[in-house]
Amino acid sequence: MGLKSGRHFLQIPGPTNVPDRILRAISRPTIDHRGPEFARLTREIIEGLRQVFRTSGPVVIYPSSGTGAWEAALVNTLSPGEKVLMFETGHFATLWRNMAVQLGLEVDFVPGDWRHGVDPAVVEAKLAADRGRTIKAVAVVHNETSTGVTSRVAEIRQRMDGLRHPALLLVDTISSLASIDYRHEEWGVDVTVGCSQKGLMLPPGLGLHAISEKALATARSARLPRSYWDWEAMLEDNRAGFFPYTPPTNLLFGLREALQMLFEEGLENVLARHARHAEATRRAVRGWGLEMVCLNPEEHSNSLTAVMLPADHDADALRKVILERFHLSLGTGLGKLKGRVFRIGHLGDFNDLMLAGTLSGVEMGLALAGVPFTKGGAGAALAYLSER
Amino acid sequence: MGLKSGRHFLQIPGPTNVPDRILRAISRPTIDHRGPEFARLTREIIEGLRQVFRTSGPVVIYPSSGTGAWEAALVNTLSPGEKVLMFETGHFATLWRNMAVQLGLEVDFVPGDWRHGVDPAVVEAKLAADRGRTIKAVAVVHNETSTGVTSRVAEIRQRMDGLRHPALLLVDTISSLASIDYRHEEWGVDVTVGCSQKGLMLPPGLGLHAISEKALATARSARLPRSYWDWEAMLEDNRAGFFPYTPPTNLLFGLREALQMLFEEGLENVLARHARHAEATRRAVRGWGLEMVCLNPEEHSNSLTAVMLPADHDADALRKVILERFHLSLGTGLGKLKGRVFRIGHLGDFNDLMLAGTLSGVEMGLALAGVPFTKGGAGAALAYLSER
Amino acid sequence: MGLKSGRHFLQIPGPTNVPDRILRAISRPTIDHRGPEFARLTREIIEGLRQVFRTSGPVVIYPSSGTGAWEAALVNTLSPGEKVLMFETGHFATLWRNMAVQLGLEVDFVPGDWRHGVDPAVVEAKLAADRGRTIKAVAVVHNETSTGVTSRVAEIRQRMDGLRHPALLLVDTISSLASIDYRHEEWGVDVTVGCSQKGLMLPPGLGLHAISEKALATARSARLPRSYWDWEAMLEDNRAGFFPYTPPTNLLFGLREALQMLFEEGLENVLARHARHAEATRRAVRGWGLEMVCLNPEEHSNSLTAVMLPADHDADALRKVILERFHLSLGTGLGKLKGRVFRIGHLGDFNDLMLAGTLSGVEMGLALAGVPFTKGGAGAALAYLSER
Amino acid sequence: MGLKSGRHFLQIPGPTNVPDRILRAISRPTIDHRGPEFARLTREIIEGLRQVFRTSGPVVIYPSSGTGAWEAALVNTLSPGEKVLMFETGHFATLWRNMAVQLGLEVDFVPGDWRHGVDPAVVEAKLAADRGRTIKAVAVVHNETSTGVTSRVAEIRQRMDGLRHPALLLVDTISSLASIDYRHEEWGVDVTVGCSQKGLMLPPGLGLHAISEKALATARSARLPRSYWDWEAMLEDNRAGFFPYTPPTNLLFGLREALQMLFEEGLENVLARHARHAEATRRAVRGWGLEMVCLNPEEHSNSLTAVMLPADHDADALRKVILERFHLSLGTGLGKLKGRVFRIGHLGDFNDLMLAGTLSGVEMGLALAGVPFTKGGAGAALAYLSER
Repeated sequence: MGLKSGRHFLQIPGPTNVPDRILRAISRPTIDHRGPEFARLTREIIEGLRQVFRTSGPVVIYPSSGTGAWEAALVNTLSPGEKVLMFETGHFATLWRNMAVQLGLEVDFVPGDWRHGVDPAVVEAKLAADRGRTIKAVAVVHNETSTGVTSRVAEIRQRMDGLRHPALLLVDTISSLASIDYRHEEWGVDVTVGCSQKGLMLPPGLGLHAISEKALATARSARLPRSYWDWEAMLEDNRAGFFPYTPPTNLLFGLREALQMLFEEGLENVLARHARHAEATRRAVRGWGLEMVCLNPEEHSNSLTAVMLPADHDADALRKVILERFHLSLGTGLGKLKGRVFRIGHLGDFNDLMLAGTLSGVEMGLALAGVPFTKGGAGAALAYLSER
Repeated sequence: MGLKSGRHFLQIPGPTNVPDRILRAISRPTIDHRGPEFARLTREIIEGLRQVFRTSGPVVIYPSSGTGAWEAALVNTLSPGEKVLMFETGHFATLWRNMAVQLGLEVDFVPGDWRHGVDPAVVEAKLAADRGRTIKAVAVVHNETSTGVTSRVAEIRQRMDGLRHPALLLVDTISSLASIDYRHEEWGVDVTVGCSQKGLMLPPGLGLHAISEKALATARSARLPRSYWDWEAMLEDNRAGFFPYTPPTNLLFGLREALQMLFEEGLENVLARHARHAEATRRAVRGWGLEMVCLNPEEHSNSLTAVMLPADHDADALRKVILERFHLSLGTGLGKLKGRVFRIGHLGDFNDLMLAGTLSGVEMGLALAGVPFTKGGAGAALAYLSER
Repeated sequence: MGLKSGRHFLQIPGPTNVPDRILRAISRPTIDHRGPEFARLTREIIEGLRQVFRTSGPVVIYPSSGTGAWEAALVNTLSPGEKVLMFETGHFATLWRNMAVQLGLEVDFVPGDWRHGVDPAVVEAKLAADRGRTIKAVAVVHNETSTGVTSRVAEIRQRMDGLRHPALLLVDTISSLASIDYRHEEWGVDVTVGCSQKGLMLPPGLGLHAISEKALATARSARLPRSYWDWEAMLEDNRAGFFPYTPPTNLLFGLREALQMLFEEGLENVLARHARHAEATRRAVRGWGLEMVCLNPEEHSNSLTAVMLPADHDADALRKVILERFHLSLGTGLGKLKGRVFRIGHLGDFNDLMLAGTLSGVEMGLALAGVPFTKGGAGAALAYLSER
Repeated sequence: MGLKSGRHFLQIPGPTNVPDRILRAISRPTIDHRGPEFARLTREIIEGLRQVFRTSGPVVIYPSSGTGAWEAALVNTLSPGEKVLMFETGHFATLWRNMAVQLGLEVDFVPGDWRHGVDPAVVEAKLAADRGRTIKAVAVVHNETSTGVTSRVAEIRQRMDGLRHPALLLVDTISSLASIDYRHEEWGVDVTVGCSQKGLMLPPGLGLHAISEKALATARSARLPRSYWDWEAMLEDNRAGFFPYTPPTNLLFGLREALQMLFEEGLENVLARHARHAEATRRAVRGWGLEMVCLNPEEHSNSLTAVMLPADHDADALRKVILERFHLSLGTGLGKLKGRVFRIGHLGDFNDLMLAGTLSGVEMGLALAGVPFTKGGAGAALAYLSER
């Protein structure tokens, strides 16, 4: 049967299901980006973003994907040939490393098994060994979207502070912002990188930064060539409510609506909701007798869960069955997890019954695809959900 | 927790979940209802509606709710004081009876227990006893939305034909059209009454008729006062693509899109999908150990399932818990079923995972509301769904 | 050239240009019409409609076109064979008369030339002559959409009051509500009939009533058959925020937005804006040397202007040229004005430059169609607009 | 009066009025950017863009503003310190120069008066003098959005070819693409830079390239650091229908719709429409007795017209009056034209009556702002429009 009726379940770990309120907001007629109405819009969303990043400092909005904000974080703070400490926590950490290399930086890339977050002790050891203070930045992915593993950013900062190492701390919160507890200012992060299409519930098209004073000061002498990504012109024009080049107006309409929705629900409630759905999902996976990619219970992601298939079973074949039969999109295995892993996104605009539908789809799909598993995982999740 | 994030599950038996394609269609700018573009629209939707009603004869679109189309069916075909044979199959059948009485008709209202459809043998007996041919119309609700019981329209017609009784056959397909097998022409129905907000997946606001030649001929001498509902002016103006008064343009945009969606999926597939989801739902109800309102296995509705709660349990309290906790709207018990019954709509734009979410919400809600039931109903539904 | 790019100018006298805010509002997902959110919606729009009708009494919203609200006004207040005084002010007044006759009422239809409003002196004479008080209702079209002539409702009421005649006063404000000064309560109207697709800026699909206490009392004994249109069930269910049958939810979303827009602009400002655009339009027509249908300067409509073409010129040929060349829809001549008249709608969501575009289109069209006229009418309108 | 009712006239030279079809398209639910439906979308829009650029070669779509596509053109083709020949045709040409300098290129910036396009003879002289072939690229703005002056790209190419100079030709078509005749392949351009929010009628958020084989080959050895903008990964992933990072899905939905609209109208018709509206606008400006920025009749832009105010008159004060009184946004004077110039955008989704409204608004605004001018400019435009 061609079951294409009904609502699609977009349970990749981003882009997430865009709520209809936001879809309507982005369908408002475009306005003059140099007029007074636009200036009010800019100020409102910058103020709102500050609350989401938990910072009182500057935030920046780029017309770009999150990948653009990665590049922007590097070119604003570093000079050719400078050294960056990075960690192989998964596919996206690896891509960020590749970008740094391509841009002419030297990367000390700490190997990893893609099943753990960054080890704060390794950060400490690396920096302690860096007597010459040649490491200019430590770049960490807060929530590795390819594995469902989070890293302990606050603890990393503490280790850096303990050593009084001057390196900047750059953090990718692409798939954690507005979904998993994160505190730019309190945790002492220098550049936080975010985007629109995950916890912020928007379509893709916005790259985001929160920036520390120290990062801004560093930018003044950083010498990687930059123009589009340059903070200075952006922050200056933003002050008056404008942008140094044409901003993506309709996505900004959507961002305003997204921020209103987050504040209506309450940011704390949003985080608690993500934690609850993540725990329910993990109970389902355990109920099925399947293995999660994440091995450290302290590092489970609240925005997605990556699940391993038994050897000899192709995760992409499973995903295909599920997409065609149940109108449910799941995340593919990326990089070296290709074919071995599928990922369930449970972030953004989501609720208990959407999760119930999602887990039901996975459970039915496992059966259809002939993957060995124990029935009842979805039921275990529901049992958890109905308890609290 | 205030779980208001994510998509609402509108599982009342109509209005149903309006697909985003249709919502976008009805947000097109309104056009001149006397211009050439409008005439093309009218012709296209009338042709499409014919296929949905399965008729080659006239169809009529009223700017009204389905209740208006009930009234229109009566006032176009009957004269003051004429007798109509009606059947107490549930709340809506009772309301239609009340309307007929209010309009000045005499109604022979065959009592019922709200748990069975119309008994064709009773129709036959009633008409056989009507030697004077004083019964001018037999009015039947095909799918009683308050109980989830369908009546066997084709068989009723056969009994009428067997007696050569000249009464018209008026059928309400409000909650069956485009969801449950129905054939206006083949079954010899004289006036079929439908609406927009159920199987047609639109918001409310359109009342629909399919009309037989015999009904049209009868209308010429029917003397209940009528103007707004009058077929003649409507059919004449429709021929040129127009309406005798301002039509509800934007809902017609939506209707065109709805018809396209039905034809893309294939009407047969649409009916099969409804049958499948209905059977899955019944398995869930049986799995919970709850009783359905419908007692005759041949009369189960494919568009909704009405479920009885054990005595001393308030169905509306259950519905309230489910709405507040799970963002799921279920149908209330109507009329004498108030508080004793809840109804699950599984019609319109729907799929397996939406059903899984719905049944999960009901199952979790039963537990939260303290209703005695057996766990696993949702699981039984999923087992059925994954088998075929 | 096929000039189909750009925004269509829908300058018929309704449906009017629906603002994008309202189009977005009606594209919200349909909600449960028996749930708490719906009840809040109902209460909010009923309260807002009261302000628009300028009444503290009951208002009613039908899922119907305005024509349905005409029928509802008659069947709620009158009994078969009762006499109604009506006036031939134009095409729509004639249609309303025809409806009354069709419904079994006796109509005293005062002939008119379609170029004047109702003469209050004639009302007085007719009622004064009615010693037996057989006239049960006086029915007046406030703004005749086919001619652009308004009638003086307050003065008519004064004449009726002067005679202490007990007839009800029924007024059609289809194309004047929220566009031309109108006061249901202050003017002592018994039933005011309105609709959605004109000054309220919505798509068609809602019929509206404001009702006096006297009309309500009369309804209790009025004996024309009615069910769908019956006030009693409607008002009772409305009290709790609900409807006796499925309401047109998405149009009600739009109505809420429309009311907000009217109140944001300010009702007085809305009326003043319509007056200003109407005067500008009349200056254009005079500048072209063309004749308006309306002959009495006190009776010019502020929502539309009907313009006569010189004999031997076909207004529909002109309209066709203008539609094809300039993407501008104008109103056709109706009834006996067919082909002789075109109508410019300047009501609803409108502004100076939309009017400038409209009048420019008419002026260019007159030239293209070979209609003899004086150039510069559009310029005269602009001169007026820029002065105030 | 606060005339905020009615449709806003967004007559800045981009973003342009986004047609409601496109606004609805971008409000479709976001889909999986790694799924089969997305791959079909990518292929369809790339094929369509090729027709718009008039190329059979590769095109690239960036999630960025047009400014990003400027940067991408430079970093893909040039190495640090290499020389680029650029021309001071206006504000945007100056910004592009500044970007090149900031990225570490050496720019030979030919001064200009902001009232003429690039002089092909100067290009020839510069390149002829460049015996050492140190000039690696010639960068030209096809249509200077700040001045309304177009440059003769085909002729520039001919001069380059005549000298067999190997420099690449980079052309900015930000405000000419899909509005003014442009032929990437036939004219031998190496990199054409475009964006979404002008002739393509979309909101901002997409940067576009058409690329020659020669440019692609050059990219392999170009050494400016690049990652986000890198063509190679983009073109490789595009081949399969995907992107190397998350693409701006909803804007791509809009792009597909925009391309359909352009092809429905016919690209030749689109260009002819722009030419017609531009000529009408120029007649209006001449009628007012005002001066255009563009001094060379062969170089008038078909997408916007920049108008100078008499000395002692502030163009921004005029724009403010027009915005507040007439809900019409005009372009501001940029850079050294600040306050002296206003710009009328007449590109994108536009028609005769929108232009009539726009010019009427300008004419009324000139009067209100006390700018000395001759009445009747708008009328002169209409006279031209009605002739053809």
